[in-house]
Amino acid sequence: MAKYSVGVDYGTNSVRALIVDVSNGAEVATAVFDYPSGDKGILLDSRDPNLARQHPGDYLEGFKACVREALAEAVANVPGFSASDVVGLGVDGTGSTPLTIDANGTALGCLPQFKDTLAAQAWLWKDHTSWAEAAEITEKGAGYPYLAKCGGTYSSEWFWSKILHCKRTAPEVFAAAYSWCELTDFVPAAITGNAAPSAMKRSVCPAGHKAMWNPEWGGLPSKEFLASLDPELAALRDRLYEQAVPSNHAAGYLTAEYAAATGLPEGLPVAVGIMDAHAGAVASEAKQGTLVKIIGTSTCDCMVHPSDLPLADIPGLCGIVPGSIIPGMTGLEAGQSAVGDIFNWFVSHLSPGLGHEELTAQAAALKPGESGLVSLDWNNGNRTVLVDPLLTGLLVGQTLHTTAAEVYRALVEATAFGARKIIERLEEYGVPVTRIVNCGGISEKNPLVMQIYADVTGRPIEIARSGQACAMGSAIFGAVAGGAFASTEAAQAAMAGVKPIRFAPQPGAVEVYNKLYAVYSDLHDAFGKTGKHPDLEGAMKSLLEIRRAARG
Amino acid sequence: MAKYSVGVDYGTNSVRALIVDVSNGAEVATAVFDYPSGDKGILLDSRDPNLARQHPGDYLEGFKACVREALAEAVANVPGFSASDVVGLGVDGTGSTPLTIDANGTALGCLPQFKDTLAAQAWLWKDHTSWAEAAEITEKGAGYPYLAKCGGTYSSEWFWSKILHCKRTAPEVFAAAYSWCELTDFVPAAITGNAAPSAMKRSVCPAGHKAMWNPEWGGLPSKEFLASLDPELAALRDRLYEQAVPSNHAAGYLTAEYAAATGLPEGLPVAVGIMDAHAGAVASEAKQGTLVKIIGTSTCDCMVHPSDLPLADIPGLCGIVPGSIIPGMTGLEAGQSAVGDIFNWFVSHLSPGLGHEELTAQAAALKPGESGLVSLDWNNGNRTVLVDPLLTGLLVGQTLHTTAAEVYRALVEATAFGARKIIERLEEYGVPVTRIVNCGGISEKNPLVMQIYADVTGRPIEIARSGQACAMGSAIFGAVAGGAFASTEAAQAAMAGVKPIRFAPQPGAVEVYNKLYAVYSDLHDAFGKTGKHPDLEGAMKSLLEIRRAARG
Repeated sequence: MAKYSVGVDYGTNSVRALIVDVSNGAEVATAVFDYPSGDKGILLDSRDPNLARQHPGDYLEGFKACVREALAEAVANVPGFSASDVVGLGVDGTGSTPLTIDANGTALGCLPQFKDTLAAQAWLWKDHTSWAEAAEITEKGAGYPYLAKCGGTYSSEWFWSKILHCKRTAPEVFAAAYSWCELTDFVPAAITGNAAPSAMKRSVCPAGHKAMWNPEWGGLPSKEFLASLDPELAALRDRLYEQAVPSNHAAGYLTAEYAAATGLPEGLPVAVGIMDAHAGAVASEAKQGTLVKIIGTSTCDCMVHPSDLPLADIPGLCGIVPGSIIPGMTGLEAGQSAVGDIFNWFVSHLSPGLGHEELTAQAAALKPGESGLVSLDWNNGNRTVLVDPLLTGLLVGQTLHTTAAEVYRALVEATAFGARKIIERLEEYGVPVTRIVNCGGISEKNPLVMQIYADVTGRPIEIARSGQACAMGSAIFGAVAGGAFASTEAAQAAMAGVKPIRFAPQPGAVEVYNKLYAVYSDLHDAFGKTGKHPDLEGAMKSLLEIRRAARG
Repeated sequence: MAKYSVGVDYGTNSVRALIVDVSNGAEVATAVFDYPSGDKGILLDSRDPNLARQHPGDYLEGFKACVREALAEAVANVPGFSASDVVGLGVDGTGSTPLTIDANGTALGCLPQFKDTLAAQAWLWKDHTSWAEAAEITEKGAGYPYLAKCGGTYSSEWFWSKILHCKRTAPEVFAAAYSWCELTDFVPAAITGNAAPSAMKRSVCPAGHKAMWNPEWGGLPSKEFLASLDPELAALRDRLYEQAVPSNHAAGYLTAEYAAATGLPEGLPVAVGIMDAHAGAVASEAKQGTLVKIIGTSTCDCMVHPSDLPLADIPGLCGIVPGSIIPGMTGLEAGQSAVGDIFNWFVSHLSPGLGHEELTAQAAALKPGESGLVSLDWNNGNRTVLVDPLLTGLLVGQTLHTTAAEVYRALVEATAFGARKIIERLEEYGVPVTRIVNCGGISEKNPLVMQIYADVTGRPIEIARSGQACAMGSAIFGAVAGGAFASTEAAQAAMAGVKPIRFAPQPGAVEVYNKLYAVYSDLHDAFGKTGKHPDLEGAMKSLLEIRRAARG
């Protein structure tokens, strides 16, 4: 009889459940739940475009709704399917998306007194309110080993920046918080009854990539370092965690409440959570030499490197963390702060009534280089290799004839150039990229984007077989935690895969893109913080300062 | 009994006639004729966005139509008005807009065998097909005095570049041309029966500003210099002209044919033509210290300086020409290659369904600096102070929240920053700007743009009284040529003027714009040809080269 695993994937706007046959990776049912709060699931503040929060209640409500619906679909679709054939469940989600919890593990944002308090909600990965704190952590971290494992620069998207910003701007929330956890720790803990901070299993994935946790220095950063930021951060350290584990471990077993609400068996093994991109990498055949790009609103780039081989600290990477993707391998994370978000921004704000489909069709009719445009892909900052959230967009080359489709294509190309910068950085530091597998919505939906990525990188592009690769990765860990496989690699061999289609680089296009990439690189180095053009590297920040002053 | 003068103004898309009371500048009638050929009067070539031509037949047909209609309107509106009360007529138009003529002065583009030949039509000011020839003229002109009077760089918009490009790319048209003339010489000559090259009066305005004509070196550039470009240019020189005169001279007297076609008296004095902006400057109270900005699709900036006072050769100016605006004064011309054209481009191609009015209303609600954007205003190249048609647009600072109105405002601000660069260049070389008077459509229609110009330049902005300042300037010269006044200044005193409204700089805004202007200046110097950033100053040209190669 077939056995199944459930993957639950928390995205930026919705959560989805996927039910997978563990023997072959076949997807038998799926369901999506749109977060009901805010603007498409995101709580915004019109006074501060850096702010992006989520209501933690949406996560728990969404879990119940989408798992229940997926199970019902499986029952309807698969003759003989029974929830009792499900052997495990895994959870992945965005990160760093930290939230405050009380001593019972209840999210403060779910308590009546904090339900309308933005600081008590989950701080979504793309919340950049803590840019000043990030800069301070980077500065004060200079005398410590921590930053070398996360690219030398601490990000405003990450755990400690957000906690410190909360302490400074919403001290009543900080004081009311017993502890903090990541979304990907919060959900497995809540559904297994291990929500109390003392019982909560912490995932090495966000711990290592976002919170500077590393066994090399005994876990989280030292109290001395944290006290240099704020004495209360040092005190908080005792209420956080010492151990963090990979996702082949079980976070616990499904409670009666969640079993009843979903239809899953009580006591079902639930894997330790993992960040969405890392889960997607697992489902995209991540192994040594393979770069997996998870392309959605932003991009996350994942590689693994055997933990017993030497590895340099690679400047600009978001994290170098043993076990964060595949146990026994060191996970490397890079990323682009906005990809689909840039295309969506253009369609929402600057398109003359054309949607993605029409713009893509018109852009596809253009030859590489024909627009005369080059764009930077920094509308939401630059995560890798510059690690600077305070960079902004740039478009050059427009004439009086430049069309919307030309700009749209230039934006697509910009994200491909950003991808190439990451590949070059990895190879420069001894991590050869011998294969690229993409996954995520844009990989599925937009062959033009994939072809441009092939032409810009000069490498074939493959696409993960699953259109829901992150959820598939969680299902793989669910299967491992549930005992269906002896190792993550064995589960990957059975359940992961790529599509038959493959985008090959076209020699003529590669040549043109090499020239455009040279212009992109000049702009990148001039406006990024590379010391080449002291006057220009401050330009984007000057504009942000002027903007801040103007908005008062 | 009142006396009247007629001004006829050839714009980029239409020609208008204006009938003015010479005693007080009152406008008694006006009529507009849209050029029937091409796309809004412009002949385009989809293979080359640099190409912009006009059918010379449209000029003559348009003259008859708009003058006839304006006279009919005057008869209808003004009790006792009679065409016999008209004492003179003046003509202004775009430039450099050269065209080929045969030995009778007939435009080749009006002959049956050439009616569909683009090279035989008028080469509109904004035709940039001859960029390579312009560069060659600049290079070969280094050993001669000519370029010092036109900013040190010869433009692809100008007379000789276009003729040389015609010789090289359409030799059959070049061979068939007996001579070449400017639109502003062509029309007065045609309507007075002085079309034959030997009889045609040439205006000092386009001759000096666009064709390197100057009494200092005996008229047009030497045969030796022209032969260094092409021996046939040297031969052509004999069939061009030796003398060029200001617009207080008469080009001739209206023929019976044009009198009959329009209703004007036969034998009416017609002034020597003048370029549109220079005519507009005359109607905008141009005198020493006053900068007149004629703001339309592009901008032309005019000043006058007493010809008997010392004056440096100012790098980057389009021309320093005795008598080109006001007889006895040296005319200084600068300009911005695109202003209204940039706003129109944005509305046509990148606006989410919003027109100029809605975008202006939304942009007006923004505070200076609030967008976080800075743009360059080079979508059609840079005329002053960089004199480089191969520069392109640049926008920096966009985020995922940037709106269309923010970009629109940034484009307006960019043109204001470009205006400030021109003012600074004039003052740097000893021509103080003590007053700014704007005229042209945008000055009339968009108070937000005018306020931004005041805030960016830190100076009050006044607006010419006439909404048709160029045509008014022509009418002023018509009145002078017709003997109604003893001097251009006397005619200005009676007929020119400004509106009561005046835009004063707002201190808070001035301060913010000083900061944004610093960023603009850094970008200007980095991407312009200033030697500061060797890698970036080639970026826009690299993109154009890649584009050219891609288009094949």
